[in-house]
Amino acid sequence: MKKDEYFMRLALKEAKKAYVKDEVPIGAIIVKNGKIIAKAHNLIKKLKDPTAHAEILAIKKAGKILGNERLIGTTLYTTLEPCAMCAGAIILARIDRLVFGPQDLKTGACGSVFKIINNKKNNHKVKVRKNILKEECADIIKKFFREKREKSQIIF
Amino acid sequence: MKKDEYFMRLALKEAKKAYVKDEVPIGAIIVKNGKIIAKAHNLIKKLKDPTAHAEILAIKKAGKILGNERLIGTTLYTTLEPCAMCAGAIILARIDRLVFGPQDLKTGACGSVFKIINNKKNNHKVKVRKNILKEECADIIKKFFREKREKSQIIF
Repeated sequence: MKKDEYFMRLALKEAKKAYVKDEVPIGAIIVKNGKIIAKAHNLIKKLKDPTAHAEILAIKKAGKILGNERLIGTTLYTTLEPCAMCAGAIILARIDRLVFGPQDLKTGACGSVFKIINNKKNNHKVKVRKNILKEECADIIKKFFREKREKSQIIF
Repeated sequence: MKKDEYFMRLALKEAKKAYVKDEVPIGAIIVKNGKIIAKAHNLIKKLKDPTAHAEILAIKKAGKILGNERLIGTTLYTTLEPCAMCAGAIILARIDRLVFGPQDLKTGACGSVFKIINNKKNNHKVKVRKNILKEECADIIKKFFREKREKSQIIF
């Protein structure tokens, strides 16, 4: 679906905002009926908040916008496979569909490391599409960490 | 340790605040060097926020108080076994020790349903103590849901 690429590009734009702020560049968008209802990017360092992943911040905004803690009929786009915390939040939020960029082989909880999304033990199923704009989404993250390593070599 | 029971009793006091607000009665406390640095209770309905579990709200507060997204040297007390979202957040926050009340056989992610805490795949280990004040912690949750069921029978 072309529209998945369109919304993922907007999520990537959010990731770029995080990059500029020296945050791990991950972005998320929540869409309902073809309209964006929330967008967010990682703000862990700025907010001094380990839960401030793009997905969590977007879910919190969407709940406020919809006036409901259940985000029925929504799709969440995120530029990296969600971790256990975010995957758990996606289920609690009753998000209908999850579209993500590359898999995260270190902490991904949608099959790569943990299987939180669509585990038989859950009471909520999520439609999943992965690997959307995966190179572009991965590139900005790799660039961020490469630069971090280079910087740390200069300082120490 | 007597002090675990002491802090769990305070977490239970938080759970009671949730009960009064018609929220699922779960409370959490974060302690560092014997001092409470954050306390919180479920506020999902009030905040229209599916992530507003007691543990997440307490972690967010503690990060602000410490001025650091890593809650090194802290213990989190919670009146129910954390779910996948909260267990993931506990690891991301680098919490040192987790003390919880009863196990949650529906969504517990510290061994009961999922094994997020102390999974070999994690890069952070958490010391865990469970079943502290488990009857009292479970009783208020059971009471809450029993009353919900009774109310729903009157209305419909």
